[in-house]
Amino acid sequence: MQNATRPIVAVVGGGFCSPQEAILAERVGRHLAQAGAILICGGMGGVMAAACRGAKSAGGLTIGVLPGFSAEDANPQVDIPIVTGLGEARNVIIVRSAAAVIAVGGEFGTLSEIAFALKLGRPVIGLGSWELAKEGRPSQAIVKAQTPEEATQLALAAISGSNW
Amino acid sequence: MQNATRPIVAVVGGGFCSPQEAILAERVGRHLAQAGAILICGGMGGVMAAACRGAKSAGGLTIGVLPGFSAEDANPQVDIPIVTGLGEARNVIIVRSAAAVIAVGGEFGTLSEIAFALKLGRPVIGLGSWELAKEGRPSQAIVKAQTPEEATQLALAAISGSNW
Amino acid sequence: MQNATRPIVAVVGGGFCSPQEAILAERVGRHLAQAGAILICGGMGGVMAAACRGAKSAGGLTIGVLPGFSAEDANPQVDIPIVTGLGEARNVIIVRSAAAVIAVGGEFGTLSEIAFALKLGRPVIGLGSWELAKEGRPSQAIVKAQTPEEATQLALAAISGSNW
Amino acid sequence: MQNATRPIVAVVGGGFCSPQEAILAERVGRHLAQAGAILICGGMGGVMAAACRGAKSAGGLTIGVLPGFSAEDANPQVDIPIVTGLGEARNVIIVRSAAAVIAVGGEFGTLSEIAFALKLGRPVIGLGSWELAKEGRPSQAIVKAQTPEEATQLALAAISGSNW
Repeated sequence: MQNATRPIVAVVGGGFCSPQEAILAERVGRHLAQAGAILICGGMGGVMAAACRGAKSAGGLTIGVLPGFSAEDANPQVDIPIVTGLGEARNVIIVRSAAAVIAVGGEFGTLSEIAFALKLGRPVIGLGSWELAKEGRPSQAIVKAQTPEEATQLALAAISGSNW
Repeated sequence: MQNATRPIVAVVGGGFCSPQEAILAERVGRHLAQAGAILICGGMGGVMAAACRGAKSAGGLTIGVLPGFSAEDANPQVDIPIVTGLGEARNVIIVRSAAAVIAVGGEFGTLSEIAFALKLGRPVIGLGSWELAKEGRPSQAIVKAQTPEEATQLALAAISGSNW
Repeated sequence: MQNATRPIVAVVGGGFCSPQEAILAERVGRHLAQAGAILICGGMGGVMAAACRGAKSAGGLTIGVLPGFSAEDANPQVDIPIVTGLGEARNVIIVRSAAAVIAVGGEFGTLSEIAFALKLGRPVIGLGSWELAKEGRPSQAIVKAQTPEEATQLALAAISGSNW
Repeated sequence: MQNATRPIVAVVGGGFCSPQEAILAERVGRHLAQAGAILICGGMGGVMAAACRGAKSAGGLTIGVLPGFSAEDANPQVDIPIVTGLGEARNVIIVRSAAAVIAVGGEFGTLSEIAFALKLGRPVIGLGSWELAKEGRPSQAIVKAQTPEEATQLALAAISGSNW
């Protein structure tokens, strides 16, 4: 089945981001496409647009799950705009549709995607993203990566190890 | 932009359907793919599965916007499973993401998709589907087609005429 | 249980409506409150505001399930604003939360609520609202009422007869 | 306007919780009701049920925004069951409908509610709940309370100070 052979991986992060984060996200997107994965993201700017650019530079397929009411909201590198009109609630769709999630930086919206992914049991790889603790004890739920290459490898390894 | 050159068209209808409806839906799916359109649907069985089969038989791309919690719910001809977990509320996403909607037969779930599409100003083509009236006066909001070929042509013509 | 003794009934209809429809909706709202039912609606203007006015005139409780992002969108007679940010997808929440649905007039958004209600097996009473047919055969799924009093009685009778 | 004089406050936390967390949540619920606030929560068990019990013990009004398909999923202390059928995506509705959020303990679902609340600019008070950091720097976005009384006071103070 095509779904199984081409995993869908989410890249999440801010709609606005630093130049450094954009470079990281673009490299994540490119590595995912080179590995044959389909990219799913929120379809907007910042980290999302950078990841899409990276994926398209390697001939990948990109899905943008948009919060608003028009396909024209999508960044130009989105192949498949999914127009939800659900606002931030669309975050859960991005994560549900993905076999693994890579978070690049990110603010509170990204945190909601990380939280949903962990709730749903999806592997979450963080690249300069949130760190969690409870009652003073750090949580290891978000796997930290140091480079885009490592983030991609960790995500894909987690997927092959899963019965997704 | 790729989005503009490859319109996304929804085919909606029952998760269970008659053999005749399946044949109609399969032909709609094939014609859409031959015309270069991307098929979006609810990703399940019945009319949805038949439309996907038709699209894949002509090398098309298929998106299934699933109501449940797992990509494995998708019929085998879905290339891109979007896993919403939203139940019937996912119907609005199918319709928002499409430039036009073709309804083949269908029950009340299909009627909700038709209603949303009309609310959003999307062209709706009906093939043996619902008919509407208010206070005894028939509504012409659903454009009736007699054949799958006509349904596809009406949908694509409506899109080219739109500023979508 | 309080939920069972005070049924929740939805009144659906246009955000803009004729003066006649407003009078009908107001009377439906008042009768529902007099019968001890809680009113749920979309929380906006037109039929929704009229139904809320009627319910409050009889000391009832009103819930508004809003499509937008702010409680301030609610009409002034809404006691409990539920702020969804989901746009039209909030229609399914109104209907799911209600034991029965009364439609007063209405356009395509109302039709989507009727369709969802029928899909979910909720009784639907129509007061000058949509009429359905398929392949030329009228559907009796929407029970027609002639007056607000009859609409309310039909809705409440359908609920008591149900195992809701 | 009634909405403004009776603020709606969310209590979020695990569907399963420790006896200690249940005691904390019950006291939060009671204090909120004593202060005249309406309680909104996810309507299920654990922290949600405990908060509802507390609110009802002080004559408060309770709203449960349910993830599933039936009002019967609600715990018995829910006055107003809102039946979404949206699964975890209902978390955003709880938070959008509240003027402030109190988190008692909680797992990843609770973290998603905290994240949405922070994204939407709602004050978030934590009682033995998540702690956030980014790149090694702790975030102060979640205001820590030591007791249920303090949590309630902080939430209500934040609301009065806001132009909600």
